[in-house]
Amino acid sequence: MPATLSRRAPRRFWGWGNADSVLDAREQAITQLLLARIGTAQAERPEPRIEEFSMPAPRISAPPALAAQFSASPLDRLNHSSGKSYADCARMWLRQAPTPPDWVAFPEDEQAVIDILDWAQAQNVAVIPYGGGSSVCGGVEAAVGDGYAGTVSLDLERLNRVLEVDPLSRAARIQAGALGPELAAQLKPHGLALRHFPQSFEFSSLGGWIATRAGGHYATQYTHIDDFVESTRLVTPCGVIQTRRLPGSGAGPAPDRLVLGSEGSLGVLTEAWMRLQLPPRFRASASVQFSDYPRAVECVRALAQSGLNPSNCRLLDPQETLFAGVGTGSASMLVLGFESADHPLQAWMGRALELVGEFGGSYDQAAVARSMAEEHSDVHRQGAAGAWRDAFLRMPYWRDPGVGLGVIMDTVESAVTWDRFAEFYAGVKRDIARAIKQATGQDVLLSCRMTHLYPDGPAPYFTFATRSADGSVASALAAWREIKQAANEALVAHGGTITHHHAVGRDHRSGYEREVDPLFRRMLAAAKHTVDPQGILNPGVLFDPCGRALGLTGALLP
Amino acid sequence: MPATLSRRAPRRFWGWGNADSVLDAREQAITQLLLARIGTAQAERPEPRIEEFSMPAPRISAPPALAAQFSASPLDRLNHSSGKSYADCARMWLRQAPTPPDWVAFPEDEQAVIDILDWAQAQNVAVIPYGGGSSVCGGVEAAVGDGYAGTVSLDLERLNRVLEVDPLSRAARIQAGALGPELAAQLKPHGLALRHFPQSFEFSSLGGWIATRAGGHYATQYTHIDDFVESTRLVTPCGVIQTRRLPGSGAGPAPDRLVLGSEGSLGVLTEAWMRLQLPPRFRASASVQFSDYPRAVECVRALAQSGLNPSNCRLLDPQETLFAGVGTGSASMLVLGFESADHPLQAWMGRALELVGEFGGSYDQAAVARSMAEEHSDVHRQGAAGAWRDAFLRMPYWRDPGVGLGVIMDTVESAVTWDRFAEFYAGVKRDIARAIKQATGQDVLLSCRMTHLYPDGPAPYFTFATRSADGSVASALAAWREIKQAANEALVAHGGTITHHHAVGRDHRSGYEREVDPLFRRMLAAAKHTVDPQGILNPGVLFDPCGRALGLTGALLP
Repeated sequence: MPATLSRRAPRRFWGWGNADSVLDAREQAITQLLLARIGTAQAERPEPRIEEFSMPAPRISAPPALAAQFSASPLDRLNHSSGKSYADCARMWLRQAPTPPDWVAFPEDEQAVIDILDWAQAQNVAVIPYGGGSSVCGGVEAAVGDGYAGTVSLDLERLNRVLEVDPLSRAARIQAGALGPELAAQLKPHGLALRHFPQSFEFSSLGGWIATRAGGHYATQYTHIDDFVESTRLVTPCGVIQTRRLPGSGAGPAPDRLVLGSEGSLGVLTEAWMRLQLPPRFRASASVQFSDYPRAVECVRALAQSGLNPSNCRLLDPQETLFAGVGTGSASMLVLGFESADHPLQAWMGRALELVGEFGGSYDQAAVARSMAEEHSDVHRQGAAGAWRDAFLRMPYWRDPGVGLGVIMDTVESAVTWDRFAEFYAGVKRDIARAIKQATGQDVLLSCRMTHLYPDGPAPYFTFATRSADGSVASALAAWREIKQAANEALVAHGGTITHHHAVGRDHRSGYEREVDPLFRRMLAAAKHTVDPQGILNPGVLFDPCGRALGLTGALLP
Repeated sequence: MPATLSRRAPRRFWGWGNADSVLDAREQAITQLLLARIGTAQAERPEPRIEEFSMPAPRISAPPALAAQFSASPLDRLNHSSGKSYADCARMWLRQAPTPPDWVAFPEDEQAVIDILDWAQAQNVAVIPYGGGSSVCGGVEAAVGDGYAGTVSLDLERLNRVLEVDPLSRAARIQAGALGPELAAQLKPHGLALRHFPQSFEFSSLGGWIATRAGGHYATQYTHIDDFVESTRLVTPCGVIQTRRLPGSGAGPAPDRLVLGSEGSLGVLTEAWMRLQLPPRFRASASVQFSDYPRAVECVRALAQSGLNPSNCRLLDPQETLFAGVGTGSASMLVLGFESADHPLQAWMGRALELVGEFGGSYDQAAVARSMAEEHSDVHRQGAAGAWRDAFLRMPYWRDPGVGLGVIMDTVESAVTWDRFAEFYAGVKRDIARAIKQATGQDVLLSCRMTHLYPDGPAPYFTFATRSADGSVASALAAWREIKQAANEALVAHGGTITHHHAVGRDHRSGYEREVDPLFRRMLAAAKHTVDPQGILNPGVLFDPCGRALGLTGALLP
């Protein structure tokens, strides 16, 4: 048996991204600065190695007809045993493989997916759709309790093709296993792009985006994957659900909206027709400084309600500029940008900067002018805005060096209406800081950026970093569990959602249950029972495992 | 017992709108022109009178505790016996009251709604949420078969208040029974507006809009009621479902999206938090002529994909300009408009007109300049665009005079991707014309406008007018049934949706069943069973009445 059946570049099982990725000099400097601020002894510890993990023998046999598509190699099982949350990585540093799946299946085509579900249903095997494996909320681990004969992680990496392109409607039929760069590369020859850029872009899949209602990089308007979905194809244990390709419809409750956010609990997405765009020809960007954060918040509210729809409108609070490596921590920064494939953006940016001025923001006019100077400009890639964007995709890597040193670095994200934001911002920070102090005895670095803006409210994204008192990973993980529970509580208690774009998974169940009406959840459960009567699909996510109660567990178990 | 328990201005039970409404001279001229084109003898026939209808005695008693909120007056029962489709009006001209409800309930508050559902469930009484009663698809009639002890039409006209306004988030909590003008009047003192303008604006309610996924007047971007919903409150026979007020969330499948489009089959909406806007200060409008329809279609596709998001972008085919009373029938017309509460629109309109020019459209530059001349301008109310807008709200009235003369005038609407549009447009027109020829032996006036535009496709709206061979209403209604069945078939067969914004009701069931995957419909049915186990809510709409099979019936029964 080979070490892996995966055909992709090897992933780092104990951290973010590719196994061979390294931090560059600048990133190392930022990381060192952060570790110093946290007060961590920076003695390196040996990284986890595959040989350090003992893996129990699979409890079930792979289905003979599909054996070539099933792997029980230690590396495949370890890689598919969890996602990429702080807790997932910490457990790897502890050399603990949390509930590894008995098998990892790499189906070659949709028929194999159907056959796997048939087999799993007959054998009472839980199936965990893996997506790209970048879940940070315990969404892809086989923590299903003991009600199943075994577990299989389902990896659709071989279903990664763009099958059909409709250039008139700007849409394409894409297999759900395609990662961001894979589908981008296949669409490029057609002059089209999906332009959905979550932070996990390189390591998350179309199916995962749809199943988790992913949020893209853009701040306003069309940024959620929800709005890009034209139709879906879902394989369930009781049959395939194909929705119709339509630009819009009012025929009953929208079928795709039930698939969106189902997190692998209702079926396995195999393909979707997705709405595409032309790549932008025109860009405009500005980096705006605000000395007064509440005024900055008023400004982004005005921008969100202006109808200008900036593609980027991220407000970093002072602490966040430090985390992102683009500021000194003394002022707030607004990363403002517009882009278009159709028209120059002077009028849009001009009006946005009028608003910025009204609220006391300052910016470099010459830099803004340069950003709009020419089509296909690469000027936007420079300056603070460009630095911030580059940092964005790399940020998850920065977490890894600290985890083995007992550093806790995590994020929570939400959305809340404007009327509640000031109280929410203060309250969530206060509650998280208090929980951290209680759990670790340490102070915390705690920052916030707004990742998405709606006319009726922002999506605040909090990042925090601290360390265990004794520098051990074990006590850091124990502390993280308390902190996470307090953060779940804080987000919902202060009027926000438990998750704006990271999904519910297993880690956010307690907040989800508080946020969403129990009667609606019973309706959902009845719908699930129709297509998954034995409850074999991702048990514990959104719904309890079949016949069992499961509380806030999963990744929260060390 | 008074003639009515309703506190609203009396409605015309046999036609559109208010009982005392009359056509003005210009409208009469347009109507006469249309009738002449259809070849109808214009001898007037006596309008239906309430005295001509015999109403069976209610089969059930009203609940004693709620008796003051229940009416069995002939006028209330007649008014609530159906919506406002062609068939609804034709049956009134035939002096046939289709399945009048045994009672009409006007609950005073939400508790009364809860009590009515409790009573109805205990007594096996079907409950038909009436909304504003403007359904044109058989959505509000008590055609429930004989599996129920009786029927009640539920009219929330007394739940019509704006309860709370959040000016920061621009949102308001509004009771579901509020009609368009009622909620607009209550929001105006706050300087805010919902700006959702379906053609039925005056006679449809917030709850009805949400239950039917109504489309507003605006052509692009935020126009569907779906996008304005921040949270909902749904009274079901098994409890109340309250969703959380959030600008966005990724926590599982979106609860509001299951309520949207449920057409009264899952529960009774009592209130919702709705996203609001400032009234526009800036406007720009243009009336564009195209001699070549396919080029005009290419132009609106370019506009839809430009990211400019015009508030109005309606393409009328040559025949439609005649129906709307704004053209001669020789050229296509594009009604193009922008509006904003925030910024002047020169750049937006300027770029849009560049695109118009590229595709061979012509327009009056001076008129466009005048439309942008000043803030709060009323210039936009003049000219062809203004005439068209005024006509829009009045159009339903124009149908009424012909119905009693054996004229069939109806509309069907859909949405389809751009790649299919040319075939769809030709095919649907061909199939409907053929069905009309077969059913009536007459020629047809058949036109199309695009009401909404998405980047991936338009929402075409077809209007047709013909007459029965013998001039009788009875044979016209019989013919209409055949035509409707053919139209349902045509919309779906040519790749469109059965309804873009008129809802499914009872008249579109055959198309709905063809469009939507049966397994998804089983999931929906399981969800419904959770909250309405006896199937008392709007039986026959989306789901079969409890324990019975119901085909394409309802309004289609004469």
